[in-house]
Amino acid sequence: MAGGRDKEVVKRLDGIGETLLRQIEKSESPTYQVPVRTLNNIFFDKKSGTIKLGDKVSDRNFLNIAHSRKFMQTLLVASEIKKVIGAQATVSIRDLYYALKHTIEGTQENTFEDQSESDPCIEDIEASLDLLREELHLAASAKGIIAGDVQLRDGKDNIDLAKMGSGGWSVPSNVEPENIEFKKVKADYVLFIEKDAVWRRFNEDQFWKKNNCIILTGRGQPGRGERRMAQRLNKEFGLPLLVLCDADPWGMYIYSVIKQGSISLSYSEEKLATPAAKFIGLTTRDVETYKIPKEVTIKLNQLDVKRLKEMESYEWFQKKEWKEEFSNMKEKAYKLELEALSKKGIRFITEEYVPRKIKEEDYLP
Amino acid sequence: MAGGRDKEVVKRLDGIGETLLRQIEKSESPTYQVPVRTLNNIFFDKKSGTIKLGDKVSDRNFLNIAHSRKFMQTLLVASEIKKVIGAQATVSIRDLYYALKHTIEGTQENTFEDQSESDPCIEDIEASLDLLREELHLAASAKGIIAGDVQLRDGKDNIDLAKMGSGGWSVPSNVEPENIEFKKVKADYVLFIEKDAVWRRFNEDQFWKKNNCIILTGRGQPGRGERRMAQRLNKEFGLPLLVLCDADPWGMYIYSVIKQGSISLSYSEEKLATPAAKFIGLTTRDVETYKIPKEVTIKLNQLDVKRLKEMESYEWFQKKEWKEEFSNMKEKAYKLELEALSKKGIRFITEEYVPRKIKEEDYLP
Repeated sequence: MAGGRDKEVVKRLDGIGETLLRQIEKSESPTYQVPVRTLNNIFFDKKSGTIKLGDKVSDRNFLNIAHSRKFMQTLLVASEIKKVIGAQATVSIRDLYYALKHTIEGTQENTFEDQSESDPCIEDIEASLDLLREELHLAASAKGIIAGDVQLRDGKDNIDLAKMGSGGWSVPSNVEPENIEFKKVKADYVLFIEKDAVWRRFNEDQFWKKNNCIILTGRGQPGRGERRMAQRLNKEFGLPLLVLCDADPWGMYIYSVIKQGSISLSYSEEKLATPAAKFIGLTTRDVETYKIPKEVTIKLNQLDVKRLKEMESYEWFQKKEWKEEFSNMKEKAYKLELEALSKKGIRFITEEYVPRKIKEEDYLP
Repeated sequence: MAGGRDKEVVKRLDGIGETLLRQIEKSESPTYQVPVRTLNNIFFDKKSGTIKLGDKVSDRNFLNIAHSRKFMQTLLVASEIKKVIGAQATVSIRDLYYALKHTIEGTQENTFEDQSESDPCIEDIEASLDLLREELHLAASAKGIIAGDVQLRDGKDNIDLAKMGSGGWSVPSNVEPENIEFKKVKADYVLFIEKDAVWRRFNEDQFWKKNNCIILTGRGQPGRGERRMAQRLNKEFGLPLLVLCDADPWGMYIYSVIKQGSISLSYSEEKLATPAAKFIGLTTRDVETYKIPKEVTIKLNQLDVKRLKEMESYEWFQKKEWKEEFSNMKEKAYKLELEALSKKGIRFITEEYVPRKIKEEDYLP
């Protein structure tokens, strides 16, 4: 796979060890720096339109007894990652945890008690070396599906996403240019669909063929692979990204993650988020515009209301159109699911709703 | 799609209406029969090796006030299904629910309050007409992935499962012969892997190519599409089905669903279960056989112990080998995950564990 990139990654990993070695040779206490990943170092960067990590760093000092366990763990993780890259393999973060778990010789102490101890070490390494998890040969869970008039090269295989039948191509966790090379992209836009059941409606109706677009789903909150895929199609081919979600705080949050990123992945969002994304629907306002019967709306519950309140406070939702939508949702006190459009007919969503939205450019920003 | 099959299905749906019509013409109370789907009508059929529905039926009588709501709902569902088939579409069971939900004119009464009212009607129709959900053009959630030297035809697309790169083909919900036609199947067996992260290890290592097999995952408890796919490959091509799960009551239950079916789908299990399936691992006995360090085992919790006790009582687990495995698990009081094998090396699972198991035919029945 990625020969050149791997070399660069290994060089950065080695850098950690070399710095420590120099400190030890100088009889200094081995220390390395990691970016602070707590909320007070995370901000929404208006210029790039993504959530970002600030520049606060903290020292991790081997001789500080409060740091030494984490120090040891981070070095173990870094060294295992180097091994994985050397073996030209990709492993899951759960594999990594198990590979490193052992009782330290002559003690009763385990290197890691559970995966919640190894995951933050991975994040520290990603953030401090400014690398994507995929570049470290670590696989995230990948659950997305894609179809459209796209040809790509993945390893030795030429893959035609226009010939995937009713199934679709399962998006891998690593879609970095070293792994996935686009050979042909014939589309006017990418439609990112929250739910896979709805994606199947669009695929069955050959929406992507009739409307010259690419359809993608992340089955709920999308994984890194799907988000990076959308970003690459947007950045490299200039394709608009339209996001189709439920009209509820959860669907709208999924949109916000696709567009500006999530707090937990703040250190990678420049490489995952697609700030140009637009929200094509559903909105609660659609209920009137599209004459959707009230019976298929769902009353907001307490959790929805609480979540809605949180969403209203997010900096990136401080836009007129979103304020209107949130206040309409509160006023009507209902939400609705994409499947509710089936009330208007089996193919209403593919033949009327989405085409009209696109024609009228009726998006939320 | 399936012209001939659709006609047969519509004929059976019409049959419900015709029977009722004749009853009405004779001034009888409209009544239809549905198989009883409660536990006391479900049994393990040793001959077929699957869980089955018994032959108890119950009447549903329109003029019985306790039945009339359900009577109306079932007819609504049957008539919508006919419409969906007529439109040559496939819909999710959530779509179906929404399509039918409305307030009955002149009343405050909704046809359905939520999906938990429409789903049992679908099951009644499946069971009473002896049809698979897929034949009714209803899509279940599909989340599986497959790769191997298999060529199939899906609609107009010829799909080569040997050329799916790192992603794999996303298994659709409907893999009935009318939708999926196998053109070439070159494999010695099918390996059904519980977890998608592990499936990715096997795919990355090109296990299916090196070992002439097909690799399939259902990401946890598999959906109908993956199970039917495995069954077809077993029945139509005589391929042994080997199931690779965690060594815990949950993984072993997944195996048991693949092999003999589930109680909730008892009425369809003859068409979904693969009684010839074998359990290739993990087992707790493997810990000694494969010298797996104790550190990567996990202590059984209360829920595990409870579930284990239930499993021990199932008729289909009354086999010497399973009794030994269950008692070993209880004695050792630990479980372990597939990823724990990473402790023995990144590719231990693909290069040593599974090949040795197959060579020694070290399976549980």
